[in-house]
Formats: sequence, structure tokens, C-alpha cells
Amino acid sequence: MTKFDEATGAVRVDATTYDVCLDPGYAIGGPLNGGYLLAALLRAAVDASAYDHPVSTSAQFLRAPATGPAQVLLAPLKTGRTAAMTRATLVQDGTACVEALVTTATLAGEPAAWSAGPPVTMPPPEECLPLPRPRPGSGMTLGERMDLRFDPPTVGWFTGAPTGRPESRAYFRLSEPQDPDPYVLALALDALPPVVFSAGHRGWAPTVELTWHLRALPAPGWLTVVGQGRLIRDGWFDEDVEVWDSAGNLVAQSRQLARLGRG
Amino acid sequence: MTKFDEATGAVRVDATTYDVCLDPGYAIGGPLNGGYLLAALLRAAVDASAYDHPVSTSAQFLRAPATGPAQVLLAPLKTGRTAAMTRATLVQDGTACVEALVTTATLAGEPAAWSAGPPVTMPPPEECLPLPRPRPGSGMTLGERMDLRFDPPTVGWFTGAPTGRPESRAYFRLSEPQDPDPYVLALALDALPPVVFSAGHRGWAPTVELTWHLRALPAPGWLTVVGQGRLIRDGWFDEDVEVWDSAGNLVAQSRQLARLGRG
Repeated sequence: MTKFDEATGAVRVDATTYDVCLDPGYAIGGPLNGGYLLAALLRAAVDASAYDHPVSTSAQFLRAPATGPAQVLLAPLKTGRTAAMTRATLVQDGTACVEALVTTATLAGEPAAWSAGPPVTMPPPEECLPLPRPRPGSGMTLGERMDLRFDPPTVGWFTGAPTGRPESRAYFRLSEPQDPDPYVLALALDALPPVVFSAGHRGWAPTVELTWHLRALPAPGWLTVVGQGRLIRDGWFDEDVEVWDSAGNLVAQSRQLARLGRG
Repeated sequence: MTKFDEATGAVRVDATTYDVCLDPGYAIGGPLNGGYLLAALLRAAVDASAYDHPVSTSAQFLRAPATGPAQVLLAPLKTGRTAAMTRATLVQDGTACVEALVTTATLAGEPAAWSAGPPVTMPPPEECLPLPRPRPGSGMTLGERMDLRFDPPTVGWFTGAPTGRPESRAYFRLSEPQDPDPYVLALALDALPPVVFSAGHRGWAPTVELTWHLRALPAPGWLTVVGQGRLIRDGWFDEDVEVWDSAGNLVAQSRQLARLGRG
């Protein structure tokens, strides 16, 4: 069992209650990564479902949970012939931290009937850049758990040369040997620095709502994570992320609405 | 009071219960339009909130309600300094039909700090086409309530010449004199024929999940509604819609995940 599988493990207590233990290894400066929280929540939702895959997840981030024990509470809303819908809430000390609507189904793995092409052409991984390791004590433990190689212009902000557009692009894999699966995708699609850093903004940018759809099971190898925003206005911004697998398939789509940092 | 305001009116029963009356004028061949249902649900959520605008809404469509009386049940999840989060469920005869997570906030109306441009250049409205009126008895009552002028290639499917890509684009306004507001936007973003018609598919395409974000209050006049899909696979497709107002502002973004019709 990998560290990630263990850190996202959900243990069945009864048909609608699962125990999880939130791992301090997936923190971004204090709070735990939202995609990590969703991965743990989705393991519970899928375990309790008659279907195999979390095809659609919409989540509101209410409060940042602490590391340590938490529960996932499930409320089945509908079980249909091809999909099931469930409300899933990550609860800690009796307080809801993340509330999500989850649709599970079983993807048959048919080839795409129609697909758009990738939104950008990435340079090969060997021409992409890791960001420097965070300072010890910064609480950015997530950086140790994953290997990100950025498309160089999209990390220009790090050296004072932002592109001026909300964008963030990188190759992604876990640091430990593990092939991507739907739970790794949940982590990957929230793993990039906020797209607004590239537009000259800084500071903690709390996600308010994140919806993602699993479109296919990913092939082994690097994932390509392409993030962009469409509008920064009134203190809010959107971040749209596509995840493509090493075989050239669009495997996940997400959009989040977040608050602009004040930092 | 316009027909649309009346049809989406939500009457407060108590702090967490609102009565609505679902109007047969917003049907698409039997079922009521999903955007119309969201408009009624959002009126209740906003009325009960300390904030003025429905900035983010994620909805799962569980069952198609009949026309007539229904309730919106609210469960407040968090009230913060800049936004509040609420679970809102459209219930009919004790059965949940739509379950949504709603974030309300008050948009200050500041100019955009950064905006992408429109994804396409539309021809002027006078060069765009209405679709023929539906046959009497088809149950497509929604068509009477709104005025849609389509970018011609995107309705080529109607005469047997689909473009081959999932896309749908039109100018939108209500048939009655009413300036657009957030509730009209909820209707507009689900008002186009499914994007997959343009890719050669037909038949009822049930929405499973729809998330939309209100990004600015719309100026009076035509709305431009631009829909496209990125992937059709395993019987599922995504439909991404942007709504632009007559002043050239991106005012709403939505994405839905839907099942491909069998028709």
C-alpha cells in the first residue's frame, strides 16, 4: 500500500459512516490540500456505491479540517440504472468541513466518440522546471509527496516575471511509485499553484467551490495538468483545470471558484 | 411582475422552507428545464441569505418534478464575512428532485481585474437564425418564453448538416420585456439545444450535474450564450457554457455533465 493510498484510506464503520485519518503530509502551508480531502471523501463514497468510479464531484469547502481523525458521512440520494448520487460530508469533531455531491458510475473504457485536442502543447518534461523545495517549517509538506515539472513561463512569477495571464501548467506524478487512478487525479487537479499567481496576484487563495468530472481512467505515466482562468473580478477568480494522461486522453476536468488572496 | 418572475417566485414559509409553483411554461418536451428549476431554487436561497447574489451553484438532478406545487428546503452550512453556503433541495411530494450547494455573496460591481476575451466572434443578431416553432403538442413550451437567435452553423444539425463538433451558440432574451438578472442567467445557460446535437447525436440528454458561477450582474439587452463540449465518451459528455452580456462582460460560466441520448 502506498503512502497516498494509506493517507486517503476510508474505513467503513456502517453503511453511511467512514473513518478517515487526515495525514499531515498533504498540507500547503497549514491547511490540507483540497484535492487530498476530496480523494479521502471519494474513497468512502465509491466504497459504499454499487458503481466503481467517482464520475462527478461538486464540493463546497466550508472549514479547513485539522490533521488527524475525521469521518465521511454519506446520504444516498438516488440509485439509478447507470449511476448513483450521494451527498458526502467530511466531518471533524461534529463540524462539517467539506460538503460534496458525488455521482458514481462505472466507466466502460470505450474509446472517445469525439475529443477536443489538448489546450496547449507542453514542452517535454525534461525542458520543464521543478519549483525549489519549500523552506523547512513552511508547512508545504505536499511538495515532498509529488513531482511537478512546470511549463517554464507559467512559473515566471516565482522569479518576478509573471506572464500577466491566469495560467499554470505542469507534468505531475506522485513521488512514490504509483500509477494514477481517480483519487490521484483528485489530488493532481488541485496541486498547481493558483493560476492567479501568473497574473501578478499573491497570497492564500481559498477555494470556495470545486467541481470535477472523471472522464476516463488514466494510463500509467506522467499526467499533464493544464490550468487557466477566464476572469478575475470583484475578488473572485475561476480556475479551470484539465488533466491529460500519458496516452493523450482527457481524463479529468475541474473548475473551481476561489477568493483572491489579500497577501 | 413578469411571467418569469412569477414562475420562479419562492414564498417564505419559515426560515428554511419556501413554497414554489412550477410553471408548465418552461417545459422541454415533458420535463421542466433545469435552468428554470435552478432559478426558482436560487430565489429561495438568496431570499434567506444575508447576501444578495447566487455566486456559485452546484446541482445534481435527481428526478424530474411535475408542474405544480413544490418546496425548496434550505440547510445553512456556513455564514462567513464575505459569503454564505447553503444546501438547497427542491422537493415535491416529499421526494428530492434537485439537490444543490449554493454560495451567496454580494458582488460589488468592480471592473474586471483581468478577463479573457469571448471564445468566438458571433455574427450580429440580424444574421442569426431562430429555430422553427415546435409543433403544437410537442411540449416544448419553453420556446415561447424566450427569443433565441442561433449562430447558423451551430444549428446546421436541424437541416441534416451538423458541424461535427459539440457546439451551440445563440443570442438570448426573454420573449417578454425583462432585463437579464441572475435568475434569467440560470435559465439562459441551460436554454440551448445540447451541444452534442451539433456532433451528430440526438435524443433527450439528461443533465446529471450542473455547476454555474455568477461572475457579474448582466447589463440590459441581448445575452450571448456560447456552449461547447470537450469530450464525448462512454455515454457521457460535458457542456461548457459562457454567458456574455451586451456590454461585453463575461457574466456567467457553467459546466454540466450529461448522459448521451439514446434517441
